[in-house]
Amino acid sequence: MLGPLSAFVLTPFDGDAVDERGFVALVERSAAAGVDSIGALGSTGSYAYLERSERARLARAAVEAAGDVPVVVGVGALSTREVLAVVEDAQQAGAAGLLLAPLSYQPLTDDEVFGLYEDVTAAASVPVCVYDNPRTTGFTFTDELRARVGRLPGVGSLKLPGVPADPDAARTWITDLRGAVAPGVTLGVSGDAFAVRGLRAGCDTWYSVVAGVLPRTCLDLTSAVLAGDDERVRRIEARLEPLWSLMAAHGSLRVAAAFAEQLGVVPRAGLPRPVRDLPAEGQRAVAELLVGGDWG
Amino acid sequence: MLGPLSAFVLTPFDGDAVDERGFVALVERSAAAGVDSIGALGSTGSYAYLERSERARLARAAVEAAGDVPVVVGVGALSTREVLAVVEDAQQAGAAGLLLAPLSYQPLTDDEVFGLYEDVTAAASVPVCVYDNPRTTGFTFTDELRARVGRLPGVGSLKLPGVPADPDAARTWITDLRGAVAPGVTLGVSGDAFAVRGLRAGCDTWYSVVAGVLPRTCLDLTSAVLAGDDERVRRIEARLEPLWSLMAAHGSLRVAAAFAEQLGVVPRAGLPRPVRDLPAEGQRAVAELLVGGDWG
Repeated sequence: MLGPLSAFVLTPFDGDAVDERGFVALVERSAAAGVDSIGALGSTGSYAYLERSERARLARAAVEAAGDVPVVVGVGALSTREVLAVVEDAQQAGAAGLLLAPLSYQPLTDDEVFGLYEDVTAAASVPVCVYDNPRTTGFTFTDELRARVGRLPGVGSLKLPGVPADPDAARTWITDLRGAVAPGVTLGVSGDAFAVRGLRAGCDTWYSVVAGVLPRTCLDLTSAVLAGDDERVRRIEARLEPLWSLMAAHGSLRVAAAFAEQLGVVPRAGLPRPVRDLPAEGQRAVAELLVGGDWG
Repeated sequence: MLGPLSAFVLTPFDGDAVDERGFVALVERSAAAGVDSIGALGSTGSYAYLERSERARLARAAVEAAGDVPVVVGVGALSTREVLAVVEDAQQAGAAGLLLAPLSYQPLTDDEVFGLYEDVTAAASVPVCVYDNPRTTGFTFTDELRARVGRLPGVGSLKLPGVPADPDAARTWITDLRGAVAPGVTLGVSGDAFAVRGLRAGCDTWYSVVAGVLPRTCLDLTSAVLAGDDERVRRIEARLEPLWSLMAAHGSLRVAAAFAEQLGVVPRAGLPRPVRDLPAEGQRAVAELLVGGDWG
């Protein structure tokens, strides 16, 4: 469905208002660096906190700012009605794909989640990426459900929440999953700390939060992994380790926002309440990381 | 904040549309039976799946249909902005109280949840009931956070997701919690299977899903518990046990909706997609329960 590096961009807030100019700057930054696709309005893009009209406006802005780079737009919402409305808006904006997580309030059964993807793929005219993220949705996919959903016509990709730590186990899992979904459905890894493991295990795509702030660094890492240049991978990973640790402690969104703001990529990368900015000790850790580093 | 029995009513759907007439019939049924308060647009009322305009219309309809019975209106939403807008609508509708769960997409920290209640109580002019339901929100309150939030001016009640199984442990917990929150803040138990335990442990209120469908039965149970009539409590609980089991297996919403529909209280009690009706085997179990029972 997409090339190896997909950069998920932040939606910066200033108080209650979306900073659309900052959002466009982030899309342009990643597109100019040469990422293979842009993810707009994903978890990093705070889609769950936005009104429908804001989502439609930002989807249009993203597609325009990305130029030739395809844009995948997050379309998740708690009700299927709302998802279908947002799908329509995203498609009219020119989305190349739709990212759909099974947001839950009432805990959903496997059949209900399958039904959601059935309803949405039946209505959509561009490929749907199945967004598997138990941390935000509260829903855990089984491999059986991944396979069922991955055989639905209209599904283009599975965005997985990581891969097993053991390289052999990771490769086996990805190989088995590839055999279980429809031919051509791509498998992507997210959780930036899993990127190298995921790509080495055979994932097609790295769905990356950090690439929305540091696209050049993530392109370097991706090309090093794909070239099998283990020494270069180790060098880049060593630089990124402290970032992965901060993300594990505070959530990738809060850390990416602090990074974007401290790097000066956007004037202010506030988060939508009730979510709050990275606390002071995290901000200081980000500042220390930035000192002397060539981050881009 | 409220008397002993609070009946949370369903919001019945017919396909994608809310059946407002059915909703009003449910409010009227519980109010006529003599419950102490009505909970409109709680989890059972599918608030998380409704648009703002629907929530405002149903809040007005509930207050009107409830007559002299106070109505607590659910105001939860993923973004604080949206919560504040819904609070305004609920207050204009005449809500006697506001039920607020810390809905989460990004997992929230304790400080973020405290901040949410701080922001909302500062804006609200009627008491806020803190809705603690980890099953739907993904957020787990600590006792320390319950105490912090329970001392915020403007908080009127804590709605707890159950009490410990051991009666002494339950009584100790409720007594300690009462000492930790501000004077006058009521403690309520939800999870209908915990009602008797909760009231016996000293909870002021039973926030009940079943009372929105079977208000008379729940009033009987409540008065039996408060009168210390253990024999009558046992009799009523024995009738309700199969219902608690079904609710534990399928979620209380799906079971309450099937019950309301099969009892004929509403012509159709559909659920908002992606949530689906109780599966066939559960529907059969509800039908068996109804045979010969004097349910009201």
